[in-house]
Amino acid sequence: MGEFSQIPRLLDAVRERAPLVHNLTNNVVQNDSASAIAAVGATQATVHNVEEARELAAISSAISINLGTPDALWTEGARIAADVAAEMNKPWVLDPVAVGLLPYRTELAAEFLARGPSVVKANASETLAIAGVDARTHGADSQHDPDEALDAAVGLAARASTVVACTGAVDIVTDGRRVVRIANGHPMMGRLIGTGCMLSPLVAAFLAVAEDPLDGAVAGLGVMAVSGEIAAAAAAGPGSLRALLFDALHNLDGETLSARLNLQSTAT
Amino acid sequence: MGEFSQIPRLLDAVRERAPLVHNLTNNVVQNDSASAIAAVGATQATVHNVEEARELAAISSAISINLGTPDALWTEGARIAADVAAEMNKPWVLDPVAVGLLPYRTELAAEFLARGPSVVKANASETLAIAGVDARTHGADSQHDPDEALDAAVGLAARASTVVACTGAVDIVTDGRRVVRIANGHPMMGRLIGTGCMLSPLVAAFLAVAEDPLDGAVAGLGVMAVSGEIAAAAAAGPGSLRALLFDALHNLDGETLSARLNLQSTAT
Amino acid sequence: MGEFSQIPRLLDAVRERAPLVHNLTNNVVQNDSASAIAAVGATQATVHNVEEARELAAISSAISINLGTPDALWTEGARIAADVAAEMNKPWVLDPVAVGLLPYRTELAAEFLARGPSVVKANASETLAIAGVDARTHGADSQHDPDEALDAAVGLAARASTVVACTGAVDIVTDGRRVVRIANGHPMMGRLIGTGCMLSPLVAAFLAVAEDPLDGAVAGLGVMAVSGEIAAAAAAGPGSLRALLFDALHNLDGETLSARLNLQSTAT
Repeated sequence: MGEFSQIPRLLDAVRERAPLVHNLTNNVVQNDSASAIAAVGATQATVHNVEEARELAAISSAISINLGTPDALWTEGARIAADVAAEMNKPWVLDPVAVGLLPYRTELAAEFLARGPSVVKANASETLAIAGVDARTHGADSQHDPDEALDAAVGLAARASTVVACTGAVDIVTDGRRVVRIANGHPMMGRLIGTGCMLSPLVAAFLAVAEDPLDGAVAGLGVMAVSGEIAAAAAAGPGSLRALLFDALHNLDGETLSARLNLQSTAT
Repeated sequence: MGEFSQIPRLLDAVRERAPLVHNLTNNVVQNDSASAIAAVGATQATVHNVEEARELAAISSAISINLGTPDALWTEGARIAADVAAEMNKPWVLDPVAVGLLPYRTELAAEFLARGPSVVKANASETLAIAGVDARTHGADSQHDPDEALDAAVGLAARASTVVACTGAVDIVTDGRRVVRIANGHPMMGRLIGTGCMLSPLVAAFLAVAEDPLDGAVAGLGVMAVSGEIAAAAAAGPGSLRALLFDALHNLDGETLSARLNLQSTAT
Repeated sequence: MGEFSQIPRLLDAVRERAPLVHNLTNNVVQNDSASAIAAVGATQATVHNVEEARELAAISSAISINLGTPDALWTEGARIAADVAAEMNKPWVLDPVAVGLLPYRTELAAEFLARGPSVVKANASETLAIAGVDARTHGADSQHDPDEALDAAVGLAARASTVVACTGAVDIVTDGRRVVRIANGHPMMGRLIGTGCMLSPLVAAFLAVAEDPLDGAVAGLGVMAVSGEIAAAAAAGPGSLRALLFDALHNLDGETLSARLNLQSTAT
């Protein structure tokens, strides 16, 4: 742990303050992402309509924008929320699902990246694609390992003044100067729809209580990875894993989190 | 039980007649609310498109309208369904999610309240807000206790000629003259996304078989609260609670319901 | 098994090739249908927006179109995807949910049927309705037994040059010349929202690896029915059944599938 001894304190802070996350996400994980926020102890408003986007964003503590099913009306609401984040200096997470797979969402991801997210949460293929290095993706699944995307992640973080949280067997989080590796989680999480998409609003909840977005991103990914490995140990497949994952997020305490977190921090 | 000895019979009636509930709800609980209706033994059409709103409402036995994610197209369908309910004198439930949090939905809730719902299902904060007393809400979670909202609920029910079902640790149901308290349920239900939203179509199913909307509301809330406490006794967190809740709704029998229901009825 | 000894090989092929299914489905089962595709080992893009419909359909191995909640924008995307399927000769499945219940969706189902699906997946009431024989349906539930729909299914398959997969206690799959009966599954599956809707993208995944669409349809329905009976044996209700079903789909091996499948094939 060492320099990351504050992560359990961030978990406590999420539960004490219950920050409101404006959760703009795709149609597939509307419930799971809302459930993940609630399970960890934060508050969610998983609301996408244009009419309320400005005011909801304005009263939220953090915003999460996942581009998985970007129809025209939804995207208009997301644009408004990202604008409010910029105007009010609120932390927000961009999740460019399957960027690189289709030109429309590649352009959309670039547009939202230009709006200045606090954190970009992406798998390795998506990280390469949004960094402009590679465009091979297969649905929402990654064809690459995070270490293949390390240079792209560091470069993107430095260039875009953001934190890149690149997920995989070992997650990599970087602000362009530091690189944190999180060696937790379980392979079965990749077989459960939504594990990636739940991460973005979880990270947003931690951004709301963290001073440094790097810490918030590490905390969100670490909490999910540790909860996932606890859940997977008792799961017989992706169906039981889902239920166990929400239980684990709900029951996770700081002591267990500290004991299990396997973090390594280096300079770039 | 006493005067509420008919509640187990209403459960039997829902299962025998399997009334069709037109379930207009938010994006987060599309599946959970449909699953709750099916688990209790009713039939659901969780369909929101404008083109079918009139005809679907016309063949339904009851309608449930939950304003959680009110985008323009969805709202148009809900307006049509509420108009059909008024024209054909069909029972319908209004669930004004997070009314008071944002001006748009506060106005929308007032508009739908004016259309004359049979039952308004709301937590204490929402009850205060829709009654015009208080507007403090935090996401979809209540900041108040039902007893703080009792006067507002009774006044709203009398003024709007409706039944107000105000949920909390102890639920309060009132038609303005009588007040029924339901002291069942479990605190963990508040950590499961959708428990509130599932209630509205459940109440709608019971309205379809009840002569008095007060009885229908008490039956719907009572069935959920008892199922929830059975489920919570075996749950390790919100993930397992969800699965156990649908099992409990499916397996609940009239005898268990009678034995567990903790109801108290008073005049206002 | 006999002539269907290739079905376990099709399951292996789905897992090896992980075909990408463009999954256009209703709002209620967005997550469940995506989860079913992932659990069986295929890849999914559960994406509906018009802007990406053409390109996503073009890179997909198979397409599934479920007409459960056909709002205007969604339907436009589905039309584009079906057009691409016709242009590029890609296999696709039509799931005409609740056709016959409401005139709008009856016309919509006829329009999509005219676009030439590889497989029409429907329960008995829907089969009768889309074949123009009978229009009695009650929500998404069937009021008929597949054997009552046998003549309609055979006639529809022959007339529309398609495969009709008619689900029920015993599923019937026909291409107009052959009829395959699948006597697997469990009655509790009918109480779980989404079991019917999950079938369509599962069949699509198998169409992507099968030479004959009849084989693909039998494989998809057989894998679901066998997984469902394994899951139901351990389930206490529809809540636990959902989790167990995804586990069973994930864990199903060819040997178990061969041993449990109860198929009967006849000529018409």
